[in-house]
Amino acid sequence: MKTVCYSKKSKGEITRDKILAEATRLINQKGFEATSINDLVKATGLKKGCLYFHFPGKDELMMTILDKAKTDMLETIKSGLNGKTPAERLNNFFKGVLEYQRSCGFAGGCIFGNTALEMSDKDERMTFFVKDFFDKWIELIRKVVKEAQDHGEARNDIPAVVMAKHIVMTIEGGIMLTRLEKSEKPLKDCVDSLRILIGLKK
Amino acid sequence: MKTVCYSKKSKGEITRDKILAEATRLINQKGFEATSINDLVKATGLKKGCLYFHFPGKDELMMTILDKAKTDMLETIKSGLNGKTPAERLNNFFKGVLEYQRSCGFAGGCIFGNTALEMSDKDERMTFFVKDFFDKWIELIRKVVKEAQDHGEARNDIPAVVMAKHIVMTIEGGIMLTRLEKSEKPLKDCVDSLRILIGLKK
Repeated sequence: MKTVCYSKKSKGEITRDKILAEATRLINQKGFEATSINDLVKATGLKKGCLYFHFPGKDELMMTILDKAKTDMLETIKSGLNGKTPAERLNNFFKGVLEYQRSCGFAGGCIFGNTALEMSDKDERMTFFVKDFFDKWIELIRKVVKEAQDHGEARNDIPAVVMAKHIVMTIEGGIMLTRLEKSEKPLKDCVDSLRILIGLKK
Repeated sequence: MKTVCYSKKSKGEITRDKILAEATRLINQKGFEATSINDLVKATGLKKGCLYFHFPGKDELMMTILDKAKTDMLETIKSGLNGKTPAERLNNFFKGVLEYQRSCGFAGGCIFGNTALEMSDKDERMTFFVKDFFDKWIELIRKVVKEAQDHGEARNDIPAVVMAKHIVMTIEGGIMLTRLEKSEKPLKDCVDSLRILIGLKK
């Protein structure tokens, strides 16, 4: 009996995915501005015309990458925030951050942090998009922090939204230092100190 | 009586300073990789040959910028850590961070954070240099945190070095968010929450 796989991707979709994967890798490594269409031609082995057929320009390509990364990352954060109690959800989230960076070999960092630093002063659309990602991330953390505070599982002398921002800022700084040192230590110190400072129950 | 000013700069030194100032501005705005020699020709109005006379290449230029920024920034941090008590020194340092970013109009961020994110995976010399800056910054903070802990002016259930790293990481994340939002709020939230979380006396 012949098996028909309806989810099989078309040749065009496979090419598009290949461009996105190579562009993401290059942009994480070199930065957006420094990645040229010629770099992509070399990395993918495709012709320039083929790249432009799939993406009208580098800006569109970057927005597609950010859009996919935003969906993926927010899903990863949501699924990382799992557990029976709010404290367990936050503890699992901290573990997840470490595991995620470990799986990347502590290279590449955070595409949103990188884009924030690279594009904040020059591209309004990307800045808005990255800001929206951080707002959504902070809101996901804020909800759980508020629950933890209400249940006496975290200190409550700081508003939940400020505590959530503090957590996200420290993690972004921790990712930067951990990438710089190519070692888990700074990020491990970062989440360990966060747990103690916010008075998180085990 | 004729006044002789011995500190007057030579024409060559003035040109060199001009190149460094424009290069710093461009690199903070666009990133290192994306700043080309042609950008510098446009920004300074100098000929390419003149640029190469002062700096053999972009890497040398960047190392000179980082070297100057490192000296300046460590001096700024040291003078920011002033006050009679350790708690006063840390509080003044936090105020100084806010004032410094305000004076930059919340643009440009931190050249070391930017370079860490841009160059961590590709240039060993710059990575080493930036890592050394963060090590020295953390050490300056660690000493004052330790004094504050010993004098009962900060909580002491976290080693001073981890607390110092936490402070530096949160500030770097805070600078990133404040630059993204072009608003003082994230960095203000960052230092306010740091003061409370580390139990710093006023």
